[in-house]
Amino acid sequence: MIVILRPNTPKELIEEVIKEVEKLGYTPHPIHGELQTVVAAIGDERIHHTLESLNVLPQVDRVIPVQKRYKLVSRESKSEDSVIDVDGVAIGGREFVIMAGPCSVESEDQLLSTAKIVRSLGAKILRGGAYKPRTSPYEFQGLGKHGLRLLETARKETGLKIITEVLSERDVEHVAASADILQIGARNAQNYQLLVECAKTRKPILLKRGMSERIEEWLLAAEYILSKGNPNVLLCERGIRTFETYTRNTLDLAAVAIAKRESHLPLIVDPSQGCGRADLVKVLCRGALAVGADALLIEVHPCPAEALSDGQQQIDFDVFAQLISELRPILNATGRMFV
Amino acid sequence: MIVILRPNTPKELIEEVIKEVEKLGYTPHPIHGELQTVVAAIGDERIHHTLESLNVLPQVDRVIPVQKRYKLVSRESKSEDSVIDVDGVAIGGREFVIMAGPCSVESEDQLLSTAKIVRSLGAKILRGGAYKPRTSPYEFQGLGKHGLRLLETARKETGLKIITEVLSERDVEHVAASADILQIGARNAQNYQLLVECAKTRKPILLKRGMSERIEEWLLAAEYILSKGNPNVLLCERGIRTFETYTRNTLDLAAVAIAKRESHLPLIVDPSQGCGRADLVKVLCRGALAVGADALLIEVHPCPAEALSDGQQQIDFDVFAQLISELRPILNATGRMFV
Amino acid sequence: MIVILRPNTPKELIEEVIKEVEKLGYTPHPIHGELQTVVAAIGDERIHHTLESLNVLPQVDRVIPVQKRYKLVSRESKSEDSVIDVDGVAIGGREFVIMAGPCSVESEDQLLSTAKIVRSLGAKILRGGAYKPRTSPYEFQGLGKHGLRLLETARKETGLKIITEVLSERDVEHVAASADILQIGARNAQNYQLLVECAKTRKPILLKRGMSERIEEWLLAAEYILSKGNPNVLLCERGIRTFETYTRNTLDLAAVAIAKRESHLPLIVDPSQGCGRADLVKVLCRGALAVGADALLIEVHPCPAEALSDGQQQIDFDVFAQLISELRPILNATGRMFV
Amino acid sequence: MIVILRPNTPKELIEEVIKEVEKLGYTPHPIHGELQTVVAAIGDERIHHTLESLNVLPQVDRVIPVQKRYKLVSRESKSEDSVIDVDGVAIGGREFVIMAGPCSVESEDQLLSTAKIVRSLGAKILRGGAYKPRTSPYEFQGLGKHGLRLLETARKETGLKIITEVLSERDVEHVAASADILQIGARNAQNYQLLVECAKTRKPILLKRGMSERIEEWLLAAEYILSKGNPNVLLCERGIRTFETYTRNTLDLAAVAIAKRESHLPLIVDPSQGCGRADLVKVLCRGALAVGADALLIEVHPCPAEALSDGQQQIDFDVFAQLISELRPILNATGRMFV
Repeated sequence: MIVILRPNTPKELIEEVIKEVEKLGYTPHPIHGELQTVVAAIGDERIHHTLESLNVLPQVDRVIPVQKRYKLVSRESKSEDSVIDVDGVAIGGREFVIMAGPCSVESEDQLLSTAKIVRSLGAKILRGGAYKPRTSPYEFQGLGKHGLRLLETARKETGLKIITEVLSERDVEHVAASADILQIGARNAQNYQLLVECAKTRKPILLKRGMSERIEEWLLAAEYILSKGNPNVLLCERGIRTFETYTRNTLDLAAVAIAKRESHLPLIVDPSQGCGRADLVKVLCRGALAVGADALLIEVHPCPAEALSDGQQQIDFDVFAQLISELRPILNATGRMFV
Repeated sequence: MIVILRPNTPKELIEEVIKEVEKLGYTPHPIHGELQTVVAAIGDERIHHTLESLNVLPQVDRVIPVQKRYKLVSRESKSEDSVIDVDGVAIGGREFVIMAGPCSVESEDQLLSTAKIVRSLGAKILRGGAYKPRTSPYEFQGLGKHGLRLLETARKETGLKIITEVLSERDVEHVAASADILQIGARNAQNYQLLVECAKTRKPILLKRGMSERIEEWLLAAEYILSKGNPNVLLCERGIRTFETYTRNTLDLAAVAIAKRESHLPLIVDPSQGCGRADLVKVLCRGALAVGADALLIEVHPCPAEALSDGQQQIDFDVFAQLISELRPILNATGRMFV
Repeated sequence: MIVILRPNTPKELIEEVIKEVEKLGYTPHPIHGELQTVVAAIGDERIHHTLESLNVLPQVDRVIPVQKRYKLVSRESKSEDSVIDVDGVAIGGREFVIMAGPCSVESEDQLLSTAKIVRSLGAKILRGGAYKPRTSPYEFQGLGKHGLRLLETARKETGLKIITEVLSERDVEHVAASADILQIGARNAQNYQLLVECAKTRKPILLKRGMSERIEEWLLAAEYILSKGNPNVLLCERGIRTFETYTRNTLDLAAVAIAKRESHLPLIVDPSQGCGRADLVKVLCRGALAVGADALLIEVHPCPAEALSDGQQQIDFDVFAQLISELRPILNATGRMFV
Repeated sequence: MIVILRPNTPKELIEEVIKEVEKLGYTPHPIHGELQTVVAAIGDERIHHTLESLNVLPQVDRVIPVQKRYKLVSRESKSEDSVIDVDGVAIGGREFVIMAGPCSVESEDQLLSTAKIVRSLGAKILRGGAYKPRTSPYEFQGLGKHGLRLLETARKETGLKIITEVLSERDVEHVAASADILQIGARNAQNYQLLVECAKTRKPILLKRGMSERIEEWLLAAEYILSKGNPNVLLCERGIRTFETYTRNTLDLAAVAIAKRESHLPLIVDPSQGCGRADLVKVLCRGALAVGADALLIEVHPCPAEALSDGQQQIDFDVFAQLISELRPILNATGRMFV
């Protein structure tokens, strides 16, 4: 850590900082600049007390951590890309993977018709929410266990793998029994108890970035899972909250490139949540592919205008077919395999 | 709901919207303006399908909800201020309440010395985290059940009521057995399963605003609790995440005034989280009081520089004493009672 | 406009709103819903008084504009893409255009060596700041008129067209005498006097989006230029300010797609400002191309580590060469011509 | 500056950084930690090249400035509060000053009636925009010179001092001839040419914080003025742009306290722009006073519903009278003098 003192700090107050640094387990190394003194505190920041608490001393201007706080998720810990095996579907390798399906599982018809279409167009994984986190308690909360049954039926009939969201620690076990990938939504992105509970299942976990989560915090949330012994994490960028109101969220495609550099984990992009508008999904899929995403998570519905949740961001079968055909030339250009 | 169509929409596409509005349970009422047609959809938005899904139709420019989505928390549902009874301490009435104590419970000494001081200066409620949500899995996670035991001891010795955070649905029962108020932190602000589980205890719940939660979403999170039959909610503004980096969060004091106007629930301000800097706590307490907060939640520690969590935002005993004495004239000026 | 009244507004207060709507030049059209009354105000919003002022009436909940506020920049006003002619270089057509060069013009050597390299790799336009808007008055402010002379020399020697920023109304005339495109930076994105002054020159104007400018506001800033009779506007997305600190700005690639849909004007992306990190420039160029940008504005410097401004976001000649070769397959895939 | 190298950087790449630091004018001081090397670069950052450009070297993780970039505005440069004399009205001293008046000057009647009322209630300074920066070119742009004439009339008739916005470098001279304070609006907060032009007049300048301006950037904008020899700057917090949509801006009252600590300049709060809603103005004035503002800038209009600009955030005469009477007890409590 680096402790920056205010200009003109008297000697005895510099000494106070040096002593406190020592007391908290670091070796202090003061550097006297032209106007200000800086105390470099040598020691492994991950096993010592943080020195950020020294900000309370009036002579301290700022405290700067030096080390990255994440370890297992970092490129330093594992330099080659992680490839996550989802019951035979590899994510993070040369193949580009498409996960598609309705926002919510609504009925057998709705789910199966969607599953068949998306499979025929190259999707390998079916998405569908059985438990829905809704902003209002009066909105459709999902079909719950019945929804999971329908997802199992869809898997049996189509061979698609299943990804579905888990909202409650108490649901983890039975959701994991039905799903191939556990999805953690943006609202639970820092619900560490839920992350730890999911980690125990050893299932792949798709971890969405929180609405206002910095990249470092997102990687640290993944670190919670890896540090519990589950390396199967898929990082998912789904847009961040900004002042812009034209879109529901601002899709941060630079974050995909950054996370791929900082971490060995695969990167997924959710363009549907990412903008909240069906008419932008196709173009954002192209952008996501171009910046190096390993997979897409796309909301597809037989009749979006009548969907029970988030209809405005779901695309219909025709648009999904166009999307796939528009992606193909860029897939070739970027050297990714698909179907 | 109001469905705004794009300029120059042909008649048959207007008809399509009108039919869809009807099909989704509303009475359509088209208004033909000079350049654009607007379809007012008459019906109770809280019991019908949302029409926001109509945004997928290309002729639809925007869909605007008319009604507020929250009901039980609103002033329309209850015009007088709610006063929440915390085992004899009333929050939301004429008395101004101070909740104070360490960020984390660290030891019996630390907790009891703090409890005695804050009580002697007028605090009625002791805060202290036994379960800590930490950004990194390698940081101090709290003393857990042992921390709860120490909080109980402090209550017995000082008579202070206890507020402590609950992180996990599975902890709700035993935390509720120790605490007088259950605290929901910003990271769990939209963890609806946890909110519902806490609601069942009938205990007062302090609900922090999420880091990037709009006021409407915050009130809807409270609605989850009220709609499960627990009216004892304390809304807590604790700063929102913005581009500004000087402070950890931007304390949104206008939100206090807005929430008090929209809702009958008491409003608490957490200046410690609200700025993340000990040196701003006193002045933000004054501001919070002046804009109409009913209570404060303040982090106080015997030696912040050596605290196990968030030392930089905790104040020591001397500063807490100054804070109280600086608040008194404004308490008098605003007609609030204190001690 | 749509005026939404609060629930339970008494008849006489509804009447008051209706009268005010009429007085302000609209035909009121009240709709009585189940819980609330809505007054649709019929009239052209661009020639009447805004009704947003009615928000001051206590019975008014919200006022919603119906019409778009921009006219000449909109697709409704001109459905085909505008192609801007920059002294023989067409921007906005099938050809993909690269503008590249140093952040600041520093010396003849620096500028000419860069100009020759970027031209040899396919750039058509040379960027370089002669007047630099710097956050601190103590930072390098640019070479001013001498910088313009060097840009003219570079044009003469390489045939590249010149884009350079203008900061002051008083500089517009002489900058326009040297430059082929006038650049308006993010800090001046809503400096309407400067926009109007630039408009008068009839030169093409590259208009950057402001740091926290909504898309609507950006298009309205362009409307200032078009409404003064200059249709030659290039819209430039350069990242918006968010809570994320890993990057200097968050490049909003969805905004490119949105602006292209809402407007006929060409869209340029500045990946250098867009992230503020040289190591992300290549990947963001690929993303920008994939979402439909018409041109790129890239900072290139012979030795970024020693640049006089923004060295951290400038790429060197080798990286620029890689960038171009990595773009080629995606250019082919998207059907854009280049060199 | 502190240059943090990546873990496992080989010796020769560390040497490269050390040499570059030296070349750019600093004395390098390497510190070898357990995992990473840090190079402290000793030298006055305000007169040397910034080392942030070293971020382009792949072995560099981050570069951290040590010194504050502002000088003349800082408390280090002048520890006592600056009191700005506005033709006999002192701002920044013990007296609390109210500036009030309409958003735009619309007519003699409107201005004079407002001026008389606000003076009778204790305001010392009259605000009123003659040149209005409007988001759309089709909105009312102000009365210009005629507006300035009306402001002069109001000064003559009431003795109030005049504050009015200046938008253009070309208007500075004649606006300064009419006004006692030149106002720089949020859109021009980093229009440095305008700031420098205003500085030359030696008039007091009220400098609003930009919509997404960090506190450091705001102080550096003030530094532009002070470094040109004009010490008469009033810093004005007017809300920042965030994700919250209930209010037009988020008033950042912590920023008032921070700016007062970092700088000796007086702090003004504009609650009208700060929230964009007339119904919140009173409560935010109380908050502003409580956190230590030296003055308020309040929009008052005889009939806000019919105002030509920003009617929704202007208060009428009755509310202004209530506001003043509600402020009085807090003024007394905080020891500020008023009228």
